[in-house]
Amino acid sequence: MKIERVELGDLPLEDGGVLEEAWLTVATWGTLAPDGGNAILFPTYFTGSHLSNARMIGPGRALDPSQWFIIVPNMIGNGVSISPSNASLRQAGARFPRVSVRDNVRAQHRLLTQVLGIPRLALATGWSMGAVQAWQWAVEHPVFVERLLPFCGSARCWPLNQAFLEGVRAALRCDVDFRDGAYEAAPERGLRAFGRAYCGWAYSPRFFREGLYRELGHESLEALLRAWEDDHLEHDANDLLCLVDAWQQADPSRGPPFDGDLAAALAQVTARTIVMPCTTDAYFTLEENALEAAMVPGAELRPIDSPYGHCAGAPGRFAAPMAQVEGAIRELLSG
Amino acid sequence: MKIERVELGDLPLEDGGVLEEAWLTVATWGTLAPDGGNAILFPTYFTGSHLSNARMIGPGRALDPSQWFIIVPNMIGNGVSISPSNASLRQAGARFPRVSVRDNVRAQHRLLTQVLGIPRLALATGWSMGAVQAWQWAVEHPVFVERLLPFCGSARCWPLNQAFLEGVRAALRCDVDFRDGAYEAAPERGLRAFGRAYCGWAYSPRFFREGLYRELGHESLEALLRAWEDDHLEHDANDLLCLVDAWQQADPSRGPPFDGDLAAALAQVTARTIVMPCTTDAYFTLEENALEAAMVPGAELRPIDSPYGHCAGAPGRFAAPMAQVEGAIRELLSG
Repeated sequence: MKIERVELGDLPLEDGGVLEEAWLTVATWGTLAPDGGNAILFPTYFTGSHLSNARMIGPGRALDPSQWFIIVPNMIGNGVSISPSNASLRQAGARFPRVSVRDNVRAQHRLLTQVLGIPRLALATGWSMGAVQAWQWAVEHPVFVERLLPFCGSARCWPLNQAFLEGVRAALRCDVDFRDGAYEAAPERGLRAFGRAYCGWAYSPRFFREGLYRELGHESLEALLRAWEDDHLEHDANDLLCLVDAWQQADPSRGPPFDGDLAAALAQVTARTIVMPCTTDAYFTLEENALEAAMVPGAELRPIDSPYGHCAGAPGRFAAPMAQVEGAIRELLSG
Repeated sequence: MKIERVELGDLPLEDGGVLEEAWLTVATWGTLAPDGGNAILFPTYFTGSHLSNARMIGPGRALDPSQWFIIVPNMIGNGVSISPSNASLRQAGARFPRVSVRDNVRAQHRLLTQVLGIPRLALATGWSMGAVQAWQWAVEHPVFVERLLPFCGSARCWPLNQAFLEGVRAALRCDVDFRDGAYEAAPERGLRAFGRAYCGWAYSPRFFREGLYRELGHESLEALLRAWEDDHLEHDANDLLCLVDAWQQADPSRGPPFDGDLAAALAQVTARTIVMPCTTDAYFTLEENALEAAMVPGAELRPIDSPYGHCAGAPGRFAAPMAQVEGAIRELLSG
């Protein structure tokens, strides 16, 4: 793995304004082939970084660096690329502008074409918000993206997903110490409430009922809930909400030329596409993945039948769904 | 409708201690038949009162007072029966003891047998937490309960349901003004966060996607979320958490003689039973209703196929699912 901080200059934003002196932290594995035909883009997910995605990359894996040049750009706002928590003073913290998924793709496009010299992508893939970015790539740069495999994500943030995010955001913002983002000390109560309110959404009824959290080392539901609280203490509150903002607004048909016509937007996709929702995902739902897959010419909907809910696709977390995703990646890449 | 405040004296509690000078506010419709054979119990739900259940009661309805004697006891903690918000000083507010669903049934049993002189129930029914109470009745007093029709509820609170409740509770408790229940002014931020975090759970993906909230008079998702916030401002925070506590612990197999063996507990039910989950209920799930129905001798599982999620069964809210529930009640009562 090679890690670079890549300066991208000022980045004009979809919702107006400019992200000043934007930069991405980018991890790459492998070597770009002379014809540039072996590049794979694998963007990060909410609360994830390149280290999280690294769990799916390695010799003998579907994402094998001996064969593929794999690029993992950290999402803007994840605390590793430019984010509220690390931006220069003028745009730090609550002053950080709204950065959309499309803005992330614009930054990544600069990275790929101007810095890395990549002519096309053999595959755009990702889990959750990573999948959302992969979708945006395939709609916005259809010739560039040869194959698309979003898992446990969706092209747009559908309204139930938006409502879910409103709930966890409200739990965080309820902490008076959050001060509308102008906190000095971390709003610990709010971060804990965010994590606790999130947990119930992340898995399936069967996961909770059968105590499958024991596979993750948690002895009880309460232990799992506390782990979710603790995990969120490691994140900056403004960073989290920056990502939630991007997530909630995600819609490749927003604005011209599609003006909200999702079917028209997804009809642009020319990539060979396998869409992999989890059957029990509570917010990136199977039914909405099916709607989207039907809008993409020739796309295959291939559900991951799993009790792990949204987390079925978490890189490296659960063996069985990982095997399904990696099998589909191999198949897609070999075709 | 006739409303009475019924004094029940000290009520010993499942988790220890005593609820002092307990009382229920009880609404009744109709007249008890000479043989006592026409009594129907219809307990209230979370944030509901007898006025909410009244929307399903009336001439020509399945619950017709000209034929049936319908009893709606307000749940302890709902602000209308004895509750944290209205108890005498020694047990007011945060000092209110933990009152379980079984405790509610104990109070209701006193009401029915000692005050109203009811020898048996032709039907125990209810929505959501009302259904949970009806289940507890049928397990604990099988001879007493001739028919059982729980809709959008379950016998026990399954772990996903518990996790969901942990989330909304955390959102409320995140408000520093809640002061662990010792607030003077209402913790408005927390109540709003509770309502906003709850809303996403209450309906289905299709409900949000197709904007079915317009049927409720809300023009946008944000308007719906605000209505959920506003609705919760009308409730006392300790009252809400008292009910959530009862809900989370609900389990008719808890303690002796079943010691957690739910199948053994539900095998006690002799009532003719129709179990009516909504196909899209996110927390009183179809799959867990199916597990429970299979444990009851002769019970029928009859899902309500509806996009309204948990709220499909809300008394008087949506015509189509109401018609299904009322049809089933008629059928059960005529058998």
